[in-house]
Amino acid sequence: MDITERDLKHIWHPCSQMKDYETFPPVTITKAQGSYLHLANGTTLIDANSSWWCKSLGHADPRIHAALMQQAKTLEHTILANTTNPTIVKLSENLAALTPNLNKVMYASDGSCAVEMALKMSLHAQQLQGQGHRQQFAALGNGYHGETCLALSVSDCGLYSEPYKPLLQPCEYLNPIPYVSGVEDNKWHDCSEEWHPIEKQLNQIKDTLCAIIFEPIVQGAGQMQIYSANFLKHLAAWAKDNQVYLIADEIMTGFGRTGLPLAIDHAGIEVDFLCVAKGLTAGVLPISAMLTSDTVYDLFYDDYEKGKSFLHSHTHTGNTLAAAVANCVFEIFQEDNIYQKIPELSAHLRQQMEAVANHTGKLTNIRHIGAMVAGDLVVDNPNTRWGFQIFQEAIKLGAMLRPLGNTLYWFPPLNTESHTIDELADITQTAIARILK
Amino acid sequence: MDITERDLKHIWHPCSQMKDYETFPPVTITKAQGSYLHLANGTTLIDANSSWWCKSLGHADPRIHAALMQQAKTLEHTILANTTNPTIVKLSENLAALTPNLNKVMYASDGSCAVEMALKMSLHAQQLQGQGHRQQFAALGNGYHGETCLALSVSDCGLYSEPYKPLLQPCEYLNPIPYVSGVEDNKWHDCSEEWHPIEKQLNQIKDTLCAIIFEPIVQGAGQMQIYSANFLKHLAAWAKDNQVYLIADEIMTGFGRTGLPLAIDHAGIEVDFLCVAKGLTAGVLPISAMLTSDTVYDLFYDDYEKGKSFLHSHTHTGNTLAAAVANCVFEIFQEDNIYQKIPELSAHLRQQMEAVANHTGKLTNIRHIGAMVAGDLVVDNPNTRWGFQIFQEAIKLGAMLRPLGNTLYWFPPLNTESHTIDELADITQTAIARILK
Repeated sequence: MDITERDLKHIWHPCSQMKDYETFPPVTITKAQGSYLHLANGTTLIDANSSWWCKSLGHADPRIHAALMQQAKTLEHTILANTTNPTIVKLSENLAALTPNLNKVMYASDGSCAVEMALKMSLHAQQLQGQGHRQQFAALGNGYHGETCLALSVSDCGLYSEPYKPLLQPCEYLNPIPYVSGVEDNKWHDCSEEWHPIEKQLNQIKDTLCAIIFEPIVQGAGQMQIYSANFLKHLAAWAKDNQVYLIADEIMTGFGRTGLPLAIDHAGIEVDFLCVAKGLTAGVLPISAMLTSDTVYDLFYDDYEKGKSFLHSHTHTGNTLAAAVANCVFEIFQEDNIYQKIPELSAHLRQQMEAVANHTGKLTNIRHIGAMVAGDLVVDNPNTRWGFQIFQEAIKLGAMLRPLGNTLYWFPPLNTESHTIDELADITQTAIARILK
Repeated sequence: MDITERDLKHIWHPCSQMKDYETFPPVTITKAQGSYLHLANGTTLIDANSSWWCKSLGHADPRIHAALMQQAKTLEHTILANTTNPTIVKLSENLAALTPNLNKVMYASDGSCAVEMALKMSLHAQQLQGQGHRQQFAALGNGYHGETCLALSVSDCGLYSEPYKPLLQPCEYLNPIPYVSGVEDNKWHDCSEEWHPIEKQLNQIKDTLCAIIFEPIVQGAGQMQIYSANFLKHLAAWAKDNQVYLIADEIMTGFGRTGLPLAIDHAGIEVDFLCVAKGLTAGVLPISAMLTSDTVYDLFYDDYEKGKSFLHSHTHTGNTLAAAVANCVFEIFQEDNIYQKIPELSAHLRQQMEAVANHTGKLTNIRHIGAMVAGDLVVDNPNTRWGFQIFQEAIKLGAMLRPLGNTLYWFPPLNTESHTIDELADITQTAIARILK
């Protein structure tokens, strides 16, 4: 059997209709280096979505491998209940330095679990401060926070959640969100007009609301939409006035994707809970983290007999190998001045996507921020899977685009070289032209 | 600041009341080797619970490090949607070989996520075969399946779930479970008498039941209780007759802990969904897997437009580094004849725990299977945290016991040497004697 047959015999691929693989078999990757995936057939693909938004530094950085080996020589992983080690302490310090107020860190491996920890903890914290009637969650319309059922309950993605409705919690979705094309958009700094209906919506549930969860600035699975930083300022002010917790899900946006360490930094707001994952290890190993404030921590801090503990755990909470990789990633960001280089990449991405739009006449609603740019296909029949066809065509041409429905986007490693973006633009343009003739 | 202060400034430890750390600070681990944790103060601790039940082969096996490095040189991780690689194909073949009927594998990182996938998929599968009214889950009384909210919904652990009740689904808990002291117990082969009330309980909900989830043979967090293999035979027969799915959560029991590759092998039953994690990488890196049958897979297999896809994903679904480690673990099990050596370890564990019970007169209800033995402390005031005190005393003496409440257990790496078990017994005995004077 060749590897494709062996794969399809046993692997149920994530986020896939497996029947699609009959005509579009999985691409066999044997190696990856920098921004490129090397295939078994000898060709390469540009990793245009950073392997699901996580490989912020590309593939196979030798410094990361050295850090991984160094750690493996001493300590792979131990239970983190009642123990500590220099690696996890260092990582926790690195994470606590991200914000002025989020001093405490709890770990898991999957991003969904970090979201579940934040939601559970917010509810529990409200109880502990005598606000047990605050049991409701709100989230932004079109948001996405993961696939475990509580995370899915606060995700506004019909397709993903429809079959599981009997298992989901109710959630108040805030709509409409003031989307923008980027930081130069007028609404970026002022969305007061759009805020008022949201405020009205929130005021109706203010006495029972526990927390509001959101992907700050960019909604990933929701077609890479960007929204006003000013919206977050309004939201933060309202939440503070109404004793409602804010949960920022920075799993996709964190560590430079929007140009700043955190996307909430665009709005200069503080939140009560922060979730990070993907970029934390530059997509090398799974580790996720939830940060919260000393104020929240103190609510749970009491004699054991009082029964106030947050008894949440995962086996690999704080896996030491993953933590060592994460620490190395923090160092590389410094050493390579990654944050300083994003503006140039950002402008280049925008310029090239505009060029593709101009040449093909098939892309509209171009938006970009940091190291991400997106546009929607202009098509007659939006129910046809044009994006999926362009995806397949682009693979023949040398890029792993994987559009979101009929939205094309580039989301390359933050250190992707300029010529690779040019290549990516050529491939995208050709693929669009071939499919949307 | 010393490392303890630095830790407590930022780390919220899992499954902990952080105030406990004031008088019992986290133990600083700098290295681990085989069955021993090496501390910053120069002493060692026996890893008596295999770092939360996962380090089946102990720490720092050079073969695992070699496999990890070899993989890191070529491919760390890529998106697994629409791609494949030799490493994940090999792992999926290894997993599919575990049972005759579970041919399809889906991955996550945390064990809880594997459980959520199985629960979601079982509900979805019932819908797809016209049984959408089957929305209820049943689970064994005293069971535990994880901390994300759907996993917690089917866990019968009051302490862990109480604060989150508003977020949990209802679940039918089957009671009482026919517990046994081990495979030599009369009830191990025949629990017909105990089965009848359970059957009655199940019959009352048979038309709305979607799936039954259980930890086969051993309930971990529920005080390491062992139950009749015959119970699982009855359960499997009933489920088959009533079109109800069975979900075996082997996250803790899988890969040799009960003496066989899977705990369901004791009963010779087939299930519809199987969850594994912990031992899969011998606790080196986080990866979890959910297996299901071709029959279930086929329900979801259709043209994309039919909307039958199982659209679940995690960023690190099938992380390649973790998969490489898992493949190496499968090889080590063969190379070192791990399964063949468990019976000797098993007998030794039982014998030594009985000896501790005899010498101290403070342990009762000794039960054991495979590489696990447990006993309950005989105490006047069961609300006192005797187990916690013995835990602290044992750390001074050289073992990381971490009891479950007032239940002491040994759950060492499967390749732990005989003299280490003798040491562990001495330490346990001394710690009990010092605390329960």
